Amino acid sequence: MRGNIFGTLFQLSTFGESHGPAIGGIIQGCPPGVSIDLDAIQKELDRRRPGQSKIVTQRKEPDKVVFYSGLFEGKTTGFPLGFHIINSNQKSKDYDHLKDKYRPSHSDYTYDKKYGIRDYRGGGRSSARETANWVVGGAVAKQFLKPTSIKITAFVSAVGDLSLEIPYQNLDFSNIEKNLVRCPDFDTAKKMEQRIKEIRKEGDTIGGIIQCVIQGVPIGLGEPIFNKLHAELARAMLTINASKGFEYGSGFGGTSMKGSQHNDLFESDGTTSTNYSGGIQGGISTGMDIYFNVAFKPVATIMQNQTSINKDHQKITIQGKGRHDPCVLPRAVPIVEALTALVLADFVLMKRTYS
Amino acid sequence: MRGNIFGTLFQLSTFGESHGPAIGGIIQGCPPGVSIDLDAIQKELDRRRPGQSKIVTQRKEPDKVVFYSGLFEGKTTGFPLGFHIINSNQKSKDYDHLKDKYRPSHSDYTYDKKYGIRDYRGGGRSSARETANWVVGGAVAKQFLKPTSIKITAFVSAVGDLSLEIPYQNLDFSNIEKNLVRCPDFDTAKKMEQRIKEIRKEGDTIGGIIQCVIQGVPIGLGEPIFNKLHAELARAMLTINASKGFEYGSGFGGTSMKGSQHNDLFESDGTTSTNYSGGIQGGISTGMDIYFNVAFKPVATIMQNQTSINKDHQKITIQGKGRHDPCVLPRAVPIVEALTALVLADFVLMKRTYS
Amino acid sequence: MRGNIFGTLFQLSTFGESHGPAIGGIIQGCPPGVSIDLDAIQKELDRRRPGQSKIVTQRKEPDKVVFYSGLFEGKTTGFPLGFHIINSNQKSKDYDHLKDKYRPSHSDYTYDKKYGIRDYRGGGRSSARETANWVVGGAVAKQFLKPTSIKITAFVSAVGDLSLEIPYQNLDFSNIEKNLVRCPDFDTAKKMEQRIKEIRKEGDTIGGIIQCVIQGVPIGLGEPIFNKLHAELARAMLTINASKGFEYGSGFGGTSMKGSQHNDLFESDGTTSTNYSGGIQGGISTGMDIYFNVAFKPVATIMQNQTSINKDHQKITIQGKGRHDPCVLPRAVPIVEALTALVLADFVLMKRTYS
Amino acid sequence: MRGNIFGTLFQLSTFGESHGPAIGGIIQGCPPGVSIDLDAIQKELDRRRPGQSKIVTQRKEPDKVVFYSGLFEGKTTGFPLGFHIINSNQKSKDYDHLKDKYRPSHSDYTYDKKYGIRDYRGGGRSSARETANWVVGGAVAKQFLKPTSIKITAFVSAVGDLSLEIPYQNLDFSNIEKNLVRCPDFDTAKKMEQRIKEIRKEGDTIGGIIQCVIQGVPIGLGEPIFNKLHAELARAMLTINASKGFEYGSGFGGTSMKGSQHNDLFESDGTTSTNYSGGIQGGISTGMDIYFNVAFKPVATIMQNQTSINKDHQKITIQGKGRHDPCVLPRAVPIVEALTALVLADFVLMKRTYS
Repeated sequence: MRGNIFGTLFQLSTFGESHGPAIGGIIQGCPPGVSIDLDAIQKELDRRRPGQSKIVTQRKEPDKVVFYSGLFEGKTTGFPLGFHIINSNQKSKDYDHLKDKYRPSHSDYTYDKKYGIRDYRGGGRSSARETANWVVGGAVAKQFLKPTSIKITAFVSAVGDLSLEIPYQNLDFSNIEKNLVRCPDFDTAKKMEQRIKEIRKEGDTIGGIIQCVIQGVPIGLGEPIFNKLHAELARAMLTINASKGFEYGSGFGGTSMKGSQHNDLFESDGTTSTNYSGGIQGGISTGMDIYFNVAFKPVATIMQNQTSINKDHQKITIQGKGRHDPCVLPRAVPIVEALTALVLADFVLMKRTYS
Repeated sequence: MRGNIFGTLFQLSTFGESHGPAIGGIIQGCPPGVSIDLDAIQKELDRRRPGQSKIVTQRKEPDKVVFYSGLFEGKTTGFPLGFHIINSNQKSKDYDHLKDKYRPSHSDYTYDKKYGIRDYRGGGRSSARETANWVVGGAVAKQFLKPTSIKITAFVSAVGDLSLEIPYQNLDFSNIEKNLVRCPDFDTAKKMEQRIKEIRKEGDTIGGIIQCVIQGVPIGLGEPIFNKLHAELARAMLTINASKGFEYGSGFGGTSMKGSQHNDLFESDGTTSTNYSGGIQGGISTGMDIYFNVAFKPVATIMQNQTSINKDHQKITIQGKGRHDPCVLPRAVPIVEALTALVLADFVLMKRTYS
Repeated sequence: MRGNIFGTLFQLSTFGESHGPAIGGIIQGCPPGVSIDLDAIQKELDRRRPGQSKIVTQRKEPDKVVFYSGLFEGKTTGFPLGFHIINSNQKSKDYDHLKDKYRPSHSDYTYDKKYGIRDYRGGGRSSARETANWVVGGAVAKQFLKPTSIKITAFVSAVGDLSLEIPYQNLDFSNIEKNLVRCPDFDTAKKMEQRIKEIRKEGDTIGGIIQCVIQGVPIGLGEPIFNKLHAELARAMLTINASKGFEYGSGFGGTSMKGSQHNDLFESDGTTSTNYSGGIQGGISTGMDIYFNVAFKPVATIMQNQTSINKDHQKITIQGKGRHDPCVLPRAVPIVEALTALVLADFVLMKRTYS
Repeated sequence: MRGNIFGTLFQLSTFGESHGPAIGGIIQGCPPGVSIDLDAIQKELDRRRPGQSKIVTQRKEPDKVVFYSGLFEGKTTGFPLGFHIINSNQKSKDYDHLKDKYRPSHSDYTYDKKYGIRDYRGGGRSSARETANWVVGGAVAKQFLKPTSIKITAFVSAVGDLSLEIPYQNLDFSNIEKNLVRCPDFDTAKKMEQRIKEIRKEGDTIGGIIQCVIQGVPIGLGEPIFNKLHAELARAMLTINASKGFEYGSGFGGTSMKGSQHNDLFESDGTTSTNYSGGIQGGISTGMDIYFNVAFKPVATIMQNQTSINKDHQKITIQGKGRHDPCVLPRAVPIVEALTALVLADFVLMKRTYS
């Protein structure tokens, strides 16, 4: 509850500010003997990396992760994995003009009021740079999960009002990494890319929706009552910077259905013909696909001048400066997957205690 | 993470099955010296009670809470409050026909597969009866919060596709308890009530949306990164039986906005002219109203016959029997408030550690 | 850390004051399908019960435990076990004269200063009555452990300066329950009983030492670094009212040994010829017997007049009144076993997450 | 409970193996605005450093700590402090001969059996090198505590059977850092130093006792029942490598006293004339001095040949090699203080939640 540890049995502790010398973390609870492919971890980081394409921020951060412990001859030892990512491309000067200013819809104001001291450079601790730590943690969790049948796939399903209308079952997930937006339908992806470029030209930003599908989940993940699988996923997703909502299965759309339509009827093999439940009943995985949506607001940093206030509560103008994302969705895809993997790894360990 | 404890500093532990002799819990972490009005607690329970009106289940449960500890001369002592609610109106016989059957879209199947043993009577531990424990915990949290300016108000904002279109600022919250649906607009409430009655006649059920508004929140509640205020609220709301989604501030609707529209611009007093942020920035309360929506699916228990399977995975027919809610929304309103109060009480205590 | 929950995966939450209507608790995390013998639980409680013999307090409390949940057809369901023990023999009047007084070496003073409100009757929350809850929790833990080879045996090894000089390997544990003191050597037990009777006649009290031996422990229980098996045992033992010290293996006596004497040399089967390690290396069980000692001070409540102060810090006289133990050791034996069982159950579950 | 996080509100997470590239940790929960003197932290590390004197291991490790986050303009920001200590003087080759061998009374055997994989170099994760992380955490905790009146002082009170017989009240604590043993009485210190030198010449090791005194503790630190102040101190002390026992106040010696002798009688100012309670009643600090003893066994690594077994359970000979401490006591003094500071910092934060 101090805000910097995620998970119970499979745990990630993190530290780091956007413009400090490094960010990093400690992964603990990963059982011993798990083969760790460091390249695969780096690859996940590269999916989140700034500067990876024309439609994301043009900051160039190599984001190389270095591990300091917990690995021996290519495998986990059962002990904590300490890791670092060096902050190499800080342009702290870019932030000097913000020293005493509160940017609209950022955490500048709340952090300053709560802590009374604020590392204003690049958002400090609140910067989305922290999410690189999560991607490392999630990448280790993915490797822990690898021997299971669990497969986590996230993709962009809406940019502004451009929505992907095809159900996920009819999508080819292998397309996701083949376009800049990370939308599995090329036509929609193209339109989305176009929209993002337009928005950037306006110096503006835009929101959207990421869908995540978890396939091959064994029956029985999740705890009843207060640690339901979907409740922990909700918490995880609302943890992501700029996220504003979470729905799973039938979600908000299902609220206007009748019970007789919404109930998922069982087949003899225990599967259900429909899956409005979203693969979870009573907080516990059913063995069917889990799927959920995460809403992202438009990024608060825009390249337009805005009025705001400073520390003394005087009216000021914030100038649009720096290198920022017009739309966070493409880079948020690996983040959604990472936190999902961490949640599942935790529940996989928890489940072992019942047998 | 074992599923039966909610909160960190202000904690609720619970136990109980729908058809056991009693349910109950332990509230710990409430500071000493808080005046406790037992009638006010009972009144909250009465808002959740079955049989309270024509549009909810007609089971008659008195739901009287009894406290065993932690109170001395009308005040909290700083020690745990142990409490019980006797289960007095169990018709376990009603469930005999379900002994080996899995009801569609219930937790019967997942509980049985996970635990290998199942108290099939009335859903056992997964029954919404457990929420009475939360209402007790929440009622104590509300009394702890009473000396602050925090005010939590939930109400039904949609039943099926009948939506309350008026922004909460223009609603009269004193109307909420004056109608059976708990919708603050009488016209909409009337339509909703009518809809619920129709649905019940069909032996069917319907979902909806509850909105919750938290007013008078001090600046600075919430932890950064992994225990953001809205993330904990999301987890709390997704904990409620039948809930499928959570959104705060601009929510899913905000995903199609541009940053230049969505940013909340500061006034000199630190408030913002708009409040798309929903009273939270960077996971920390801004001092503006917090507001969020919770989606509820239609209840799974319908008064119609449905095909399903039994323990041996043979096809069977489930008969619609018993006394159930056609729409959980009216009774879920105090539950939403209770969990919200518990989350806030926890963060109020956490905030004290910073000063 | 709020003081009322013990354990992580196998958890006991408790509530209750000495003179409230009941004490009780919630046991959660016990896996489903564990056969529960309620008589065996009651039998453990009877070992702790006041009035069980001539050398303990003559209060008559039946201490009957009632379970409300988590059991179905004689087995655990995987859900929390809520339980109560009614407080039936409260003579609160006995405590009226203590209302504003601080008894020497009790928690009256610290509780009052910390909480500002105090249930003075019988020590309130700080009463050793609470330990009945632990015995219930421990009895369930023992039944969970039953299918393993783990066997926990505690006994009185010193009363005042009367020490049992025989190593535990040469003792017949079946003698423990055959004498009032719970010392496995009848000669020593007799002397101890005599000493306790003398002390009682003086209106005084006396301390002593309990030894606990855990046999049949599998290799690998315990977490490294911060949750070492012996560190958690130490915490558990220092939790017991009146306990002042803990040592395991060679303990304080081993501090004057040389490494060449103290090192336990391995046999081919992985056992060691000596066991100064006390069955734990690096915080993890070696498979050899675990053994430790717990020091208990003389009970603070004596039947003699003592000077003290009241709430207003005026000098007063505390009169020796009521029905109290001249020596807590005999009744503390099942308490030591109960907390030991809870610690081990937790680590047994934790160990499962590694496989 | 995963073994690598210490504390609840003031938390230290650690990682690192003896022969990895670095060890380190994350300190979270330290309130914002605490002035941090990096030199003071380094000074604490220097007190623990190998090679600091003739009577400790002659390994030369600079043990420079580097902070990566959580500090801004010399003060804590309220965010996690990530730190590293580079491992610069690893002679991993020294350990090649131990690859498949189990050293007596080390964690080699239990770690290998539990984890199935083992970084054998220098003990890996179980190495006392980890304690450098604790000293960093404790040094930050000390600075957090600095504005309070709390003063923590540990010193060596016994080496083998050489005991310091003077009560701590009559000792001059300023002498502690003026001799190599860290015993505040120069005469005793001299004898202890002599004894350690003799033991080293024999290629042997020796144990001892550290006493710790906490002065200026405010009334009210500690939680009742399961998180008593002394229980958490016991756990902390038993966490230290080679520790075998803990006693506070009258400790094991008090077990042979009578209640009438042992009770601490109040003075009008709330202090007590004696302090057998050790500054804690009912788990909560009384405002009097807290004092406790920690027993340390002789270090297991001796410079003599010993028989043992290897991974295949064949009898082998372990040769005494490397640079090791003949007596850990002098270097353990800052470790005892560090963990004590971490425990107190946690309870100071916890106490704030009551007001």
